[in-house]
Amino acid sequence: MRITKHIKSLKGYIHGDQPSGRGIIKINTNENAYPPSPKCAEALKKFDVNSLRLYPNAECTKLRMAIAKLHKTTPEHVFVGNGSDEILSLSAKAFVEDNESIGSLDPSYSLYNTLADIRGVNWKGSPEDKPLSLAKDTSLFLWTNPNAPTGSFTSPEVIRAFAAAYPGILIVDEAYADFAPTNCMHLATANKNKNIIVMRTFSKSYSLAGMRVGYCVGPTELIAALMKIKDSYNVDAIAQEVALAAIKDQRWMENNAKKIIETREYFSEELSKRKWEVIPSSANFVFAKPPKGIKAEDVFEHLKTRNIFVRHFKTPNTRRYIRFSIGTRSEMNKTLSAIDKYN
Amino acid sequence: MRITKHIKSLKGYIHGDQPSGRGIIKINTNENAYPPSPKCAEALKKFDVNSLRLYPNAECTKLRMAIAKLHKTTPEHVFVGNGSDEILSLSAKAFVEDNESIGSLDPSYSLYNTLADIRGVNWKGSPEDKPLSLAKDTSLFLWTNPNAPTGSFTSPEVIRAFAAAYPGILIVDEAYADFAPTNCMHLATANKNKNIIVMRTFSKSYSLAGMRVGYCVGPTELIAALMKIKDSYNVDAIAQEVALAAIKDQRWMENNAKKIIETREYFSEELSKRKWEVIPSSANFVFAKPPKGIKAEDVFEHLKTRNIFVRHFKTPNTRRYIRFSIGTRSEMNKTLSAIDKYN
Repeated sequence: MRITKHIKSLKGYIHGDQPSGRGIIKINTNENAYPPSPKCAEALKKFDVNSLRLYPNAECTKLRMAIAKLHKTTPEHVFVGNGSDEILSLSAKAFVEDNESIGSLDPSYSLYNTLADIRGVNWKGSPEDKPLSLAKDTSLFLWTNPNAPTGSFTSPEVIRAFAAAYPGILIVDEAYADFAPTNCMHLATANKNKNIIVMRTFSKSYSLAGMRVGYCVGPTELIAALMKIKDSYNVDAIAQEVALAAIKDQRWMENNAKKIIETREYFSEELSKRKWEVIPSSANFVFAKPPKGIKAEDVFEHLKTRNIFVRHFKTPNTRRYIRFSIGTRSEMNKTLSAIDKYN
Repeated sequence: MRITKHIKSLKGYIHGDQPSGRGIIKINTNENAYPPSPKCAEALKKFDVNSLRLYPNAECTKLRMAIAKLHKTTPEHVFVGNGSDEILSLSAKAFVEDNESIGSLDPSYSLYNTLADIRGVNWKGSPEDKPLSLAKDTSLFLWTNPNAPTGSFTSPEVIRAFAAAYPGILIVDEAYADFAPTNCMHLATANKNKNIIVMRTFSKSYSLAGMRVGYCVGPTELIAALMKIKDSYNVDAIAQEVALAAIKDQRWMENNAKKIIETREYFSEELSKRKWEVIPSSANFVFAKPPKGIKAEDVFEHLKTRNIFVRHFKTPNTRRYIRFSIGTRSEMNKTLSAIDKYN
């Protein structure tokens, strides 16, 4: 047995439960409450299955052109991955030397920690209010904005200032940007910024988590480095077509995002009325602390018995909270009723 | 700019041209001449596009069960990746320490070299007739069998003996096994073998190169290491369904393989008649050297002007050869006619 030492001792990332079945309410992994654009179904229907005998376009040419057009830039500024996960994994290879480290906010997306583990380098967490204090010794900083699991939003101006003072490469993970008031894309497309990459995904606002397509936008030199080390054909032919159909239907995505934002505000207010401490969210989920005397993990278990799946993170600075992905209005009302029955 | 040193200096893998258009004969990247099973189209048609809003099954449960059944083993012995490329990349992480190296036959699949480069470790090539001589200092050996680009086949007994004497982990890349007389799968499923992994792909015999699904079979400890470091959701929901449909239709795959083998034998014979030196092939391609006085690269360019795309590798031990993927009988006849016009 010759498994490398650091991987032998690795714990690995624990993703949320993926229960399925009728009658369950699955609001634990920030999936979209609504289906993808009908244009995706059309693209799938039109897809020539026989063409699958051929390799896909290795550079995602058409999709990168559409992404570039959306963000008013050129395809050389765009990289497409097999989900954002692949982009993160490639970035850890391309932008971090063996003796360097990766930073992110703490708390943030729990995968970042595992990513550093797999890469065999250290991870450093920085508090949201003064990230630069600890980040300056890292060479790659992953800033989820809006942040997960808190949902809180940092203004592009603060992030721009961070990047200007940061000696490494900053990836702003904007998985939830379409649910936020604004975003940092203009920082990634501005030629003067040499160390800012903005990452997006089709998994959340475009309702395509099952399809695995993520992308990032940034300086051409950094994008070229990612292109050089990606697997030759990293995004399959069907995924390229379906994502293309989705991105061309901005109205569908925006309508769904609007409904989710409305439900998020409604749900946040309802939780507040019930004395929950709700962190103001700019994402498609809400991070909230139950009233005094009630343990978050007990609420989590209670909801589970009622077939409502939410997320509870056991780390010290998150264990008093529950993360609720925003489902349909009806699902959130059922969740509120179930909470009422616990109180 | 903070791109890591070894990646900055990296050349990157050069994949074959992917020309498209009417009337071209594309026999340069070992794609299948025939379309995938009609069951794949059915699976795609039945697929509920709305379910794409949810993450895919993270462990490819159903597909791994089907693969395990086919090879008379259990799912814990099976790993599924976003193409074999992902499996290779993960293996380079899981089974090679930073100061170790990766070995393969020389010549072999040119990606292996790049893979070591990206991983930041050395690559060592071993001659086909005595691989152990140079391999013993490596910790991961990638043995393509049938080999590419030669097409030559090594018996499972020789490979078993190699593995028994080899201190590292052996991955037998059996991308072309369905075109060969036999294979090494029984070595990977035998509990007594602790260092043999056999890798397969849906890209070649199953005609699904566009879909990106590969898998490997081996000892549970090694498979568990790969599972631990893969991206959470590495294979998309549609790819899982389409691959499942393909693997369940063994007859379709076998019929296509049979036709390709027949055409390969016919084409090899025809080339021999024209005084080409043909390496006996057990794959879906033929590696052959033009008659004395004719340069391989000139034939390559000549065929290209006639819209026939073959492969020419410029390394010293391959540059005198042309690799022809086996297309339909008609495509190979047109290729022969074009060759005749050059002679």
